[in-house]
Amino acid sequence: MSLFETSDRAKRVHEDLLEFMDSRIYPAEAMYEEQMRASGDPQFHPPVLEELKAEARCRGLWNLFHPHPDWGPGLTNAEYAPLCEIMGRSPRLAPEATNCSAPDTGNMEVLTLFGSDEHKERYLLPLLDGTIRSAFAMTEPAVASSDATNIELRMVRQGDEYVLNGRKWFASNALHKNCRVLIVMGKTDPDAPPHRQQSMMVVPIDAPGLTLVRGLPVFGYQDREGHAEILFEDVRVPVSDVLAGEGEGFAISQARLGPGRIHHCMRAIGMAERALELLCRRALSRSTFGTPVADRANVQDWIAEARIDIEKSRLLTLKAAWMMDEVGNRVARTEIAAIKVDAPATALRVVDRAIQVHGAAGVSDDVPLAAFWAHLRTLRIADGPDEVHKRTIARQELRKYAEPT
Amino acid sequence: MSLFETSDRAKRVHEDLLEFMDSRIYPAEAMYEEQMRASGDPQFHPPVLEELKAEARCRGLWNLFHPHPDWGPGLTNAEYAPLCEIMGRSPRLAPEATNCSAPDTGNMEVLTLFGSDEHKERYLLPLLDGTIRSAFAMTEPAVASSDATNIELRMVRQGDEYVLNGRKWFASNALHKNCRVLIVMGKTDPDAPPHRQQSMMVVPIDAPGLTLVRGLPVFGYQDREGHAEILFEDVRVPVSDVLAGEGEGFAISQARLGPGRIHHCMRAIGMAERALELLCRRALSRSTFGTPVADRANVQDWIAEARIDIEKSRLLTLKAAWMMDEVGNRVARTEIAAIKVDAPATALRVVDRAIQVHGAAGVSDDVPLAAFWAHLRTLRIADGPDEVHKRTIARQELRKYAEPT
Amino acid sequence: MSLFETSDRAKRVHEDLLEFMDSRIYPAEAMYEEQMRASGDPQFHPPVLEELKAEARCRGLWNLFHPHPDWGPGLTNAEYAPLCEIMGRSPRLAPEATNCSAPDTGNMEVLTLFGSDEHKERYLLPLLDGTIRSAFAMTEPAVASSDATNIELRMVRQGDEYVLNGRKWFASNALHKNCRVLIVMGKTDPDAPPHRQQSMMVVPIDAPGLTLVRGLPVFGYQDREGHAEILFEDVRVPVSDVLAGEGEGFAISQARLGPGRIHHCMRAIGMAERALELLCRRALSRSTFGTPVADRANVQDWIAEARIDIEKSRLLTLKAAWMMDEVGNRVARTEIAAIKVDAPATALRVVDRAIQVHGAAGVSDDVPLAAFWAHLRTLRIADGPDEVHKRTIARQELRKYAEPT
Amino acid sequence: MSLFETSDRAKRVHEDLLEFMDSRIYPAEAMYEEQMRASGDPQFHPPVLEELKAEARCRGLWNLFHPHPDWGPGLTNAEYAPLCEIMGRSPRLAPEATNCSAPDTGNMEVLTLFGSDEHKERYLLPLLDGTIRSAFAMTEPAVASSDATNIELRMVRQGDEYVLNGRKWFASNALHKNCRVLIVMGKTDPDAPPHRQQSMMVVPIDAPGLTLVRGLPVFGYQDREGHAEILFEDVRVPVSDVLAGEGEGFAISQARLGPGRIHHCMRAIGMAERALELLCRRALSRSTFGTPVADRANVQDWIAEARIDIEKSRLLTLKAAWMMDEVGNRVARTEIAAIKVDAPATALRVVDRAIQVHGAAGVSDDVPLAAFWAHLRTLRIADGPDEVHKRTIARQELRKYAEPT
Repeated sequence: MSLFETSDRAKRVHEDLLEFMDSRIYPAEAMYEEQMRASGDPQFHPPVLEELKAEARCRGLWNLFHPHPDWGPGLTNAEYAPLCEIMGRSPRLAPEATNCSAPDTGNMEVLTLFGSDEHKERYLLPLLDGTIRSAFAMTEPAVASSDATNIELRMVRQGDEYVLNGRKWFASNALHKNCRVLIVMGKTDPDAPPHRQQSMMVVPIDAPGLTLVRGLPVFGYQDREGHAEILFEDVRVPVSDVLAGEGEGFAISQARLGPGRIHHCMRAIGMAERALELLCRRALSRSTFGTPVADRANVQDWIAEARIDIEKSRLLTLKAAWMMDEVGNRVARTEIAAIKVDAPATALRVVDRAIQVHGAAGVSDDVPLAAFWAHLRTLRIADGPDEVHKRTIARQELRKYAEPT
Repeated sequence: MSLFETSDRAKRVHEDLLEFMDSRIYPAEAMYEEQMRASGDPQFHPPVLEELKAEARCRGLWNLFHPHPDWGPGLTNAEYAPLCEIMGRSPRLAPEATNCSAPDTGNMEVLTLFGSDEHKERYLLPLLDGTIRSAFAMTEPAVASSDATNIELRMVRQGDEYVLNGRKWFASNALHKNCRVLIVMGKTDPDAPPHRQQSMMVVPIDAPGLTLVRGLPVFGYQDREGHAEILFEDVRVPVSDVLAGEGEGFAISQARLGPGRIHHCMRAIGMAERALELLCRRALSRSTFGTPVADRANVQDWIAEARIDIEKSRLLTLKAAWMMDEVGNRVARTEIAAIKVDAPATALRVVDRAIQVHGAAGVSDDVPLAAFWAHLRTLRIADGPDEVHKRTIARQELRKYAEPT
Repeated sequence: MSLFETSDRAKRVHEDLLEFMDSRIYPAEAMYEEQMRASGDPQFHPPVLEELKAEARCRGLWNLFHPHPDWGPGLTNAEYAPLCEIMGRSPRLAPEATNCSAPDTGNMEVLTLFGSDEHKERYLLPLLDGTIRSAFAMTEPAVASSDATNIELRMVRQGDEYVLNGRKWFASNALHKNCRVLIVMGKTDPDAPPHRQQSMMVVPIDAPGLTLVRGLPVFGYQDREGHAEILFEDVRVPVSDVLAGEGEGFAISQARLGPGRIHHCMRAIGMAERALELLCRRALSRSTFGTPVADRANVQDWIAEARIDIEKSRLLTLKAAWMMDEVGNRVARTEIAAIKVDAPATALRVVDRAIQVHGAAGVSDDVPLAAFWAHLRTLRIADGPDEVHKRTIARQELRKYAEPT
Repeated sequence: MSLFETSDRAKRVHEDLLEFMDSRIYPAEAMYEEQMRASGDPQFHPPVLEELKAEARCRGLWNLFHPHPDWGPGLTNAEYAPLCEIMGRSPRLAPEATNCSAPDTGNMEVLTLFGSDEHKERYLLPLLDGTIRSAFAMTEPAVASSDATNIELRMVRQGDEYVLNGRKWFASNALHKNCRVLIVMGKTDPDAPPHRQQSMMVVPIDAPGLTLVRGLPVFGYQDREGHAEILFEDVRVPVSDVLAGEGEGFAISQARLGPGRIHHCMRAIGMAERALELLCRRALSRSTFGTPVADRANVQDWIAEARIDIEKSRLLTLKAAWMMDEVGNRVARTEIAAIKVDAPATALRVVDRAIQVHGAAGVSDDVPLAAFWAHLRTLRIADGPDEVHKRTIARQELRKYAEPT
């Protein structure tokens, strides 16, 4: 299969999704904003979302991310990626409506691969059903979490249980009204080799000793799903809730990241496309000093640069998706690191210029640009800052020329 | 006086202000945040602010911006500019504590120069006293307001009154608990020459027909002072409240902008300095992959580039201030346009990198960086987007070489 | 066919070409430089080149660009593009050794499509044989030639001849020892519609009245092929040497540009790859302040950014080539404009950083980086400056949203 | 003295120099180019230069750089800096015409401070007279010379002599027809502390064992003064020709750099100003697609950005000069490092855009832009690459916040 030609199956879903966006998602955006505003609660779960979910499911636009045909259309990464871009054009509605939100998708993958039967029964099935949500607790406020070996939340074995003590933050989705479960990364053995010290555990959100301290804002936004600070004080987790066994935390986190990065990056490209559309429409509608803004050569340069940048970033991401399908995450790690750096940066440039063309409206909430910007800026930090990924790429590149020792 | 040597008078205020920052302002930041959070009201007026105001006034650190020694220390622009930078390091507290906030300072200037005796009695004196606040209503949602001739709010003369109809937005300060008065720019005569069509009027905030529709967020932030959308429906303004006469609106707006731009730019530089300090402290305190972040050459490059950029932007702004004092706003218009473009962009680059070094903390509100960013990004749009100012500079430059015709 | 999977035929040529580069081209570079230096003549035709040509032809690595299997391997644009990149790694030797140099390739296309039998006999066959070379005279010193309608060289019909008067420059290849013929663009009818005023003619280089005034340097380099300034004084051209008829000049120039842009861009990417290799090898071989340069995080960032940028630019160019094959130049014009802007800019960034890592050696001729830079910088201007192509892209993009009128 | 107000003495020289530029230097540029071209010798010493020197001396515009009133006007760094900018507008003629060329100025300083009576008699006086020239041999091809401790040229004491063996390159001026003497940095004691291992010696250019191997090109330019590769094979230097004593090499090199950096940076700013003038004139003189280039908003943005950047870079350099005068090189080292990074980069941006506006002419030698670019690009490497200076600045900045240990 080529980058530019996709399977008939994927094409069909593609068309269905476009139709769903046009007929349901975009028209629902204003109502969504209104229901949120009316509630006065940043974590409100607006009814329009459940209607969209029902409709999406009914149309077969459900669990589109899922590689197994039992649970969704069973698309490859290369087939799913373009759908993710489309959803990214309306990032607050489309991913959740189709049960394709982060971090639930990654958590469902992990539970599928490493969960016990009980985990599947209690958490995976409801997640696939869209009746509950989940969070992932990795980053810690006290250390540079981009180096996973820095992680400090302690998981101490006592009999058939582990006792968890520590503090996590930016656990996205944890404040979602439907969130029921966390996957938690912590340190089980400080004396093991660096990448064997960590374990991952399944922890119900109402576990005794677990406190949702607060929701962290992102720029000024309190996102509906929430980015929680969570305190663990003697939280007891049965040994049976360790995923894949003690010391496997780092390995799972590596496995988990690949597809999620494709999703984030393609959604970023979708946001960039929407920003470029908004930029063009605005430039066509306003005039200054007797000239339509769209006729000014500097704005035309911005439009051209945006078009070029978006095309390139999309091609790079599609190639990474294709490589994941063909040769696997490990071989494709340079490509996956590359899109992690590139797609958010590209989208930020486009969105920033769209803001500029909108003037004051651009920084407000009357257009989604400021919210896009805040979200995209965060992507340059989440799952490791740009610099960590560049380091990975550079070391890989230098290895080609290093003397064998 | 040189750029680097200042008067004894200014030096004394400088030292007093530094001392006030250290002993009162920085220590009050946490309490301010706490009082705001506790209130649950984004427009809450926290008591700590009144304490700081009282203390500042008592120390003679009051109306520092004011050029007339009757009302403040009577400093020149070049003398005041460095003080403004210091205040910019704590932008939510220091300017208001010293009665130096925008847009009050600009409004006080305008009322001093163009206000009637009644305006001075009712508004100017309380503003100088810090007991009331004011707003400036210029930008409109429906047109590209960077071209002032686009302004559409109608001011129709009927007998001894004007009747105002139209819509303004991003009227900053209008939601401040103490805001009592607006200066409003509108169109009195659509048939006059382009720069004689506009007038400015003094309008009490509780004028019948005036509705504060909502506060506009800025990247998710509902700033305490508020950026209001205001609807004017048959608001009646007596002829005596027209500033400087019908058709003088554009001329006043030009006069008004000079000092305000110095203030905004110097505060931006103060934010950049604080961001650089935060960046350095964070880089010194965290390690990844066995190396302190501060030892990494990419972060060192960022620090050096920040230091160079800040130095340059400060010198440019000081030169503009010095020129305003020596040759006046009109001759200095290239310099004033230059800093308007340069200082916010410089500060944004520094703040963005400080965010990156902070990781997730950088986008939250645990450090002031995300809020700085949102505010600074807005400065690239407020009072005309960068592109309008670049156009001014370029036309001035090209004029040197154009054939006389 | 996909972007990542190519035909067996193309794969075979690809491998043969790589082998030829390793066994013949790279080893010949030093001898080439020596022969050039020894000659003291910037336009010297060094014997090593003829040896390489003979060897390439013998291996079937000849006219690789030619789409018709009678004259070369008969590859599509998408198949040829990756070969072009490989040749770009040694741009002074590989393209000429395989008879794939600009502007000969474009001229051969034009003569194939629009030439008379006599043109084919006298010029096309020897060009295909590599025994003569050709130039293309379009740009003029007196006007902004990026707007083709500005062209001023006059072609006035007198009986069965046209009389040419005017001045061209940057006619690349015109000083090549083997150059025998020019294709000249000029104005036949100033009163025709803008895109029907120009014609193209075939003019022998020794035509009476044609003077090669001088070779233009490019950043100090007198390139071997030469960039000639040419004076036309009453040069008489028979009507039979007009290509495709009077008024067809603009149309031919549009047809001509597509494949040539792919070639230039893929060679640019080849230069970028070689620069990145040189950067890495240098960084691994030098130390400062006790640390290998390759271990410094700023240099690692540069390497990663180069890797990402090159990957993206290659994908974009391959997509443009693929589109040219699938949907033709006209539909692919946004893509072709995009790579024209992107590939040289990308390569310049990589080369500039490679220069920086090399220190003084980087600006000298001991490594090919400075020469790459000069050539690539010129590509941002040749065939229209970036700004013209961005304008094309922006207008295309804006058209999507413009109101129908 | 302020940044903006200079002494009467400096003002007078300033006016005289401007007059000299207008009446003599600019008009001589074309003749200079013609004499160089006619000679066919890149190192030709064109007669026009001696005429300009005679005229400059006669006008008292001689040794303007020299701080001692015995030898020139006796200006401070802050007074001389603006003159240097003016000379930079015609960098091939003005500095040499006024006997202010690098590296002669630095060498004269060193000989004044550290030379013996014999050095002064044989070299310093003729240098001050402009009858001979000199070079400085520091950089080596085999090591990263930005770290001075890497220097490998060996200087081994044998009785009353040192025996020098090693290789230098990029010794600028060494190929000047009048060059008679080198100052050579080498390693006398590999076992001493790192900054005491080096010594500097005075070596006549015709010393036995010293071979001028070749002139290095810069991009394609063979500069008239030459950038020589020099081989030292058993070159014998009497002990009396060691400057300031064995082990003082590093200390002298530090002392030497300050003023030279001001000069280089101000000349860079002069080049930038000339480039901006050329850009504006060109933009006013050409049209594309029916619009003068000067009316296009992207070109206007470039002009404005150039104006802002130049202003900022000039202010930074003037401040560094002022600080050198007031507090000395050592305290001003951050400022000196800052301008070394900033001024060439600023000028390169302006020149690059001026090239773009000129199209093909911009890369040729019909305008001085390509030559400016090549020279300025080299400044980002000479006397240490940007990265070394950024490291200095960053470490200084971080020191403010580091814990005392």
